[in-house]
Amino acid sequence: MLAALRLVVAESELVAIVNTGDDLELHGLSISPDLDTITYTLAGAVNPATGWGLVGETFSALDGFSRYGMATWFALGDRDLATHLFRTARLREGATLSQVTAEIATAWALQTRLLPMSDSPVRTRVRLSSGEEIDFQEYFVKLHHDVAVSGVRFDGAEQAAPAPGVLEALEEAEVIVVAPSNPIVSIAPILAVPGIKEALVARRDRVVAVSGIIGGHALKGPADRLLVELGSEPSALGVARRLESVVGAFVIDEVDAALKEPIAELGLRTAVCDTIMRDESVSAKLARTVLSIGAGNGDA
Amino acid sequence: MLAALRLVVAESELVAIVNTGDDLELHGLSISPDLDTITYTLAGAVNPATGWGLVGETFSALDGFSRYGMATWFALGDRDLATHLFRTARLREGATLSQVTAEIATAWALQTRLLPMSDSPVRTRVRLSSGEEIDFQEYFVKLHHDVAVSGVRFDGAEQAAPAPGVLEALEEAEVIVVAPSNPIVSIAPILAVPGIKEALVARRDRVVAVSGIIGGHALKGPADRLLVELGSEPSALGVARRLESVVGAFVIDEVDAALKEPIAELGLRTAVCDTIMRDESVSAKLARTVLSIGAGNGDA
Repeated sequence: MLAALRLVVAESELVAIVNTGDDLELHGLSISPDLDTITYTLAGAVNPATGWGLVGETFSALDGFSRYGMATWFALGDRDLATHLFRTARLREGATLSQVTAEIATAWALQTRLLPMSDSPVRTRVRLSSGEEIDFQEYFVKLHHDVAVSGVRFDGAEQAAPAPGVLEALEEAEVIVVAPSNPIVSIAPILAVPGIKEALVARRDRVVAVSGIIGGHALKGPADRLLVELGSEPSALGVARRLESVVGAFVIDEVDAALKEPIAELGLRTAVCDTIMRDESVSAKLARTVLSIGAGNGDA
Repeated sequence: MLAALRLVVAESELVAIVNTGDDLELHGLSISPDLDTITYTLAGAVNPATGWGLVGETFSALDGFSRYGMATWFALGDRDLATHLFRTARLREGATLSQVTAEIATAWALQTRLLPMSDSPVRTRVRLSSGEEIDFQEYFVKLHHDVAVSGVRFDGAEQAAPAPGVLEALEEAEVIVVAPSNPIVSIAPILAVPGIKEALVARRDRVVAVSGIIGGHALKGPADRLLVELGSEPSALGVARRLESVVGAFVIDEVDAALKEPIAELGLRTAVCDTIMRDESVSAKLARTVLSIGAGNGDA
């Protein structure tokens, strides 16, 4: 979504508030997958085949991990390791995650400001139907999200504060875009940090979400399955219902045009357009639609 | 030297007591270059062109380090990083360096026992003629040992104890071999750990050293230069004088045959043979000579 937005807005005018509930500690390293994926993507360095990690990456260290019986289910690339080593060393020196994130963004010459949702650790914990509770990355990567889930909680969220700049950005933004991400495990952890949800509610008229569910399915990831497991309809309407308290506008895909009315009945301005960002033309059009309806313009 | 000895002795009968004064912390990693070089060498995995690091290694992470302004003068390979990450994580979990060293040796299927000289940190510090004091690896790698040295000390040595098994190995060994390593920065730190020097003195008759200085020069490294700078003759005799209190026998190269007499006058049994281990035949012959004279046999 950020890549789409910067087709129509100067990169330096964008601020990204990023989920850190996915963060993990592995092999002694502090890993922030969502921050890194956004950094690499905006830098044009992401592996386009996977959507994560670096293009042309090598995985020699991972071979070494096997030798020592270290976990290899989280595929750390060699150049990517430098990012984690840098972050880990800086955090140990006393830097905040915000500071390190800014330093990494600078190292990649990003114009867009990246803000972790909080400098305090928040960890998304997934309760399985078996009763076991596991870390998000275990659920997502190790188990390929191929298990039944009975609940999700955000460990540490209650004690966390928004990172410096987060509330200010939400107060000052012309439009606040909730990306077409998983509402349960990617959007909800951000909203769980005290103050952020309230900041969105306060500016609800300028908040616009894009549905990550298209035709009843997530483009990738387990959002559709999780919605069903946690009692929501696996549709753009189900997503809208989860977000209605914080968003004033909602953008859905053309295949979901029939859901425009039910979503409008929730009190949301709605726009229908192609939301599958397969090329720059579609992406730019979506970005313009999002910004237009988010800025308070009527249905489209 | 270990590789030579195992040509004539079962690997499982060898115990290596290894210098850890060269250890360093870099990028938050606990790095033990001497232990690793020995591990990789005995595993047949060392890069033969450099004598350190892994053969066929990649250096992608190092590219990443540059991006973040991290030091790159110590070339950490990608597979090698796995070793450092494993060691660092295990040490943080509370394992001792001995334990981690054994685990790494097992991972590489080594038959030879590797013992760090101590589980406590000892750091070789090099005082330059400028008055500045720096870490060993800064001297050795970063500055390519191309600076004048006025002194060397082993920070932490006085408080250190020999690692478990070190004194027992020295008590039980049929022969104790002091490798043809740098007497000032590789042998001396081991002897600086309280108890180790005394253990050698107690078994002096079974201790044999091989001169690392041949024809007045070190085969590699700064041993010759350091000997001069710190007041010794840069010769096998100079090395023998530095070690005479702990060794009963001394092996020198054929080019240094003229030094046999002066060394014998120090009270050392002496053997002269080819000490440049260019192939297995020469290496095996040297190993047999070392073990024979070390075991108490007369001059050769």
